[in-house]
Amino acid sequence: MMNAVYSGTFDPVTNGHLDIIERCSKKFGRITVLVLNNPSKKHMFTVEERINLLREVTKDIKNVEVDSFSGLLVDYMKKNQVKLIVRGLRAVSDFEYEMQMALMNNRLYDDAETVFLIARNQYSYLSSSIVKEVASFNGNINGLVPKIVELAIKEKLKGV
Amino acid sequence: MMNAVYSGTFDPVTNGHLDIIERCSKKFGRITVLVLNNPSKKHMFTVEERINLLREVTKDIKNVEVDSFSGLLVDYMKKNQVKLIVRGLRAVSDFEYEMQMALMNNRLYDDAETVFLIARNQYSYLSSSIVKEVASFNGNINGLVPKIVELAIKEKLKGV
Amino acid sequence: MMNAVYSGTFDPVTNGHLDIIERCSKKFGRITVLVLNNPSKKHMFTVEERINLLREVTKDIKNVEVDSFSGLLVDYMKKNQVKLIVRGLRAVSDFEYEMQMALMNNRLYDDAETVFLIARNQYSYLSSSIVKEVASFNGNINGLVPKIVELAIKEKLKGV
Amino acid sequence: MMNAVYSGTFDPVTNGHLDIIERCSKKFGRITVLVLNNPSKKHMFTVEERINLLREVTKDIKNVEVDSFSGLLVDYMKKNQVKLIVRGLRAVSDFEYEMQMALMNNRLYDDAETVFLIARNQYSYLSSSIVKEVASFNGNINGLVPKIVELAIKEKLKGV
Amino acid sequence: MMNAVYSGTFDPVTNGHLDIIERCSKKFGRITVLVLNNPSKKHMFTVEERINLLREVTKDIKNVEVDSFSGLLVDYMKKNQVKLIVRGLRAVSDFEYEMQMALMNNRLYDDAETVFLIARNQYSYLSSSIVKEVASFNGNINGLVPKIVELAIKEKLKGV
Amino acid sequence: MMNAVYSGTFDPVTNGHLDIIERCSKKFGRITVLVLNNPSKKHMFTVEERINLLREVTKDIKNVEVDSFSGLLVDYMKKNQVKLIVRGLRAVSDFEYEMQMALMNNRLYDDAETVFLIARNQYSYLSSSIVKEVASFNGNINGLVPKIVELAIKEKLKGV
Repeated sequence: MMNAVYSGTFDPVTNGHLDIIERCSKKFGRITVLVLNNPSKKHMFTVEERINLLREVTKDIKNVEVDSFSGLLVDYMKKNQVKLIVRGLRAVSDFEYEMQMALMNNRLYDDAETVFLIARNQYSYLSSSIVKEVASFNGNINGLVPKIVELAIKEKLKGV
Repeated sequence: MMNAVYSGTFDPVTNGHLDIIERCSKKFGRITVLVLNNPSKKHMFTVEERINLLREVTKDIKNVEVDSFSGLLVDYMKKNQVKLIVRGLRAVSDFEYEMQMALMNNRLYDDAETVFLIARNQYSYLSSSIVKEVASFNGNINGLVPKIVELAIKEKLKGV
Repeated sequence: MMNAVYSGTFDPVTNGHLDIIERCSKKFGRITVLVLNNPSKKHMFTVEERINLLREVTKDIKNVEVDSFSGLLVDYMKKNQVKLIVRGLRAVSDFEYEMQMALMNNRLYDDAETVFLIARNQYSYLSSSIVKEVASFNGNINGLVPKIVELAIKEKLKGV
Repeated sequence: MMNAVYSGTFDPVTNGHLDIIERCSKKFGRITVLVLNNPSKKHMFTVEERINLLREVTKDIKNVEVDSFSGLLVDYMKKNQVKLIVRGLRAVSDFEYEMQMALMNNRLYDDAETVFLIARNQYSYLSSSIVKEVASFNGNINGLVPKIVELAIKEKLKGV
Repeated sequence: MMNAVYSGTFDPVTNGHLDIIERCSKKFGRITVLVLNNPSKKHMFTVEERINLLREVTKDIKNVEVDSFSGLLVDYMKKNQVKLIVRGLRAVSDFEYEMQMALMNNRLYDDAETVFLIARNQYSYLSSSIVKEVASFNGNINGLVPKIVELAIKEKLKGV
Repeated sequence: MMNAVYSGTFDPVTNGHLDIIERCSKKFGRITVLVLNNPSKKHMFTVEERINLLREVTKDIKNVEVDSFSGLLVDYMKKNQVKLIVRGLRAVSDFEYEMQMALMNNRLYDDAETVFLIARNQYSYLSSSIVKEVASFNGNINGLVPKIVELAIKEKLKGV
């Protein structure tokens, strides 16, 4: 089966991400969840923390591995011989940016193909940003992220 | 490798459809191009003609077969043990209808997963309808559809 | 409390419509569910049938009445002294048409105000059309419409 | 100055169309308002009636002429040596269709360039269709179309 | 009548906001215009200044009060027993973010319902940001904001 | 022929910008490519560098001049007696911001008219930002920007 890479920032992983990972693991071969390291953006969690949370919440899903990369996604793909990119689509506002990236990645690496999965209804308006925003005001994020991520966010916010 | 079904009306197949088929054949297992038979809509080509054109233009692409079905796509999938639906996305206006269908198909058949591929730049505003409209006014459709389809459209329009 | 009219075709009423009606009944005064009678469109159910289904499924919701009208919504509103229109918004594709209607209704009747409610996640891609389409191919529409509507659709389709 | 063609159905001309024509006449050379004759669609006014209404309402605007054509817009342009197409954009839902047509027209005629003007605020949700719909229910369309068009619509509706 | 909260940043209040407030005051009960205090964003006016401007421009509208809050909107609502959120919708680009917030607020507080009003034509492309940008280059903002706000902006810019 | 101004940030000019400039130079009179100087944003190239690159890549296109301005576009237009603004449209996400600016510019200067050209297929997802992002990771930007711009970007990134 075709291996695939599911790339993103995952700051932190939400139940929406986890749903995409689970669905992919049933349809594709090995799924590499790839934390793209973009030092120019500010994050709540370090790359290592994001990787650890991802490993923890995907440990019972077969065929999933977690990795990180600094650089162009296509360079990671060439080096690791992966030719399929998986992305989740939630809303129209995601769509045009994703289209731009898919066309650019295909331009940079002819063999790269991007496939999109639609976020399920219950996750269609869920994002890492809104989770962090709600949590920062002590709002209830139960059910939006895995339990371990919920605790990690609360721990982070204590330190602020 | 995971088999997939690429469903549509294909009235007639365009170079945009063909590009999706070729890209799928490299990434997935067997691709079934499925002509959905919707008797309530008016078409230029009969289901048989559409199948024949599809068979002709895909004959050199490995792992492709052409079929037709009257009924719900998910019923075809259950019967033929296919669990992956492939769809092309061209523009924002496609997006919400496709989202609706993907969520509905998943509701009707829990194992059904829809993956979307982005139409390449040069096909992003190409549709069977605009090809037929241009051809009906004697406009040049060369490069928009395979040669054999171009001839078939001209033949059809002669008879009008 | 301000009375409101929730207008539509309701051919037939879905669980998405019902959710809007229930939510309105808690926040506004009397809600008139108004079946707009547009003879130029083809429907599965007659106006009377649509009214009866609506009455049946809303009978336990307080402050709801069902009515029908042939003509401009604002004329109904003037005659019945209602000044608030309620509409559900599901997706971006609804939005511009609804904006056009809201601005036009306000132009035709200065006191008319339209308020929009967002369809809940689970109904965001549900419409009367897709329910009828799925049902016409014997697909399972359980959970998309009230039980009595499900039976009415099946009865209708038998007669086809 | 560069001549331009402003093509459409104009069934009938609205104040939104008229605003675009007036603005073009100040910035471009001769403006040809071109009624595209599409026999497969049903119209309220015949091509001749639409031309007459357009001539009447544009008679005081300099540099404007009215014409009609059956066929591809680019064929009219080649024959009449016009290289500029003017189109009005109201809303996002117009945008993708217009993009498709602009790219297709450029493909069919390399010299053809389409320029878009934004409808002014007060016309952004005005269309011939909504005017006819409102008028058909005896709604007030004063201010949406020129007076002579308002009378013509009422005359038409009497005959129904 | 049902009380409602109209929340936002109001940095500063525009004629578009004021139009929404006036329309709400005719249809709902008491309207609380709530300045959400988000210290992580940079503003032109302090919360106190924004409150004062809002109080000044709404002083002749019945049933309006102005307040501010640091925290989740739903926490303010629970504390003050308000169950209705009013939001203005201008354009498609507003829509998805608003949908996300409405669904999240309902998730956080089951009784919270968000109703959307469409900005009138003349305000559909008006925002606090564009007003500040135009003013910062000495552009004319007359008619976009109340007179007192116009003066306050000019005063602020003098100090820069 | 009507002179026009094509304004933007051009940080740096891409092949998409260049295509718009070339197409305009065939249809309009003198085209002023105007670098708007917005000191509050961070840029890769200084205004002078952006002007020099623009002059270099447009030197063989007739009727083109390059200029820069700090302030409102309409003030530049009044001073230089230009009444036509040219803008490129790539995608739906551009559309609403552009609509807002066009309506605002017309409000600030009654004679100002904005015309939009559609980016050609191959440039529809090209932006200065994505070019800089790809280049910053040593990705291949050949074909996305003129050769001289490619070299200038590489030179800049060396210094980082």
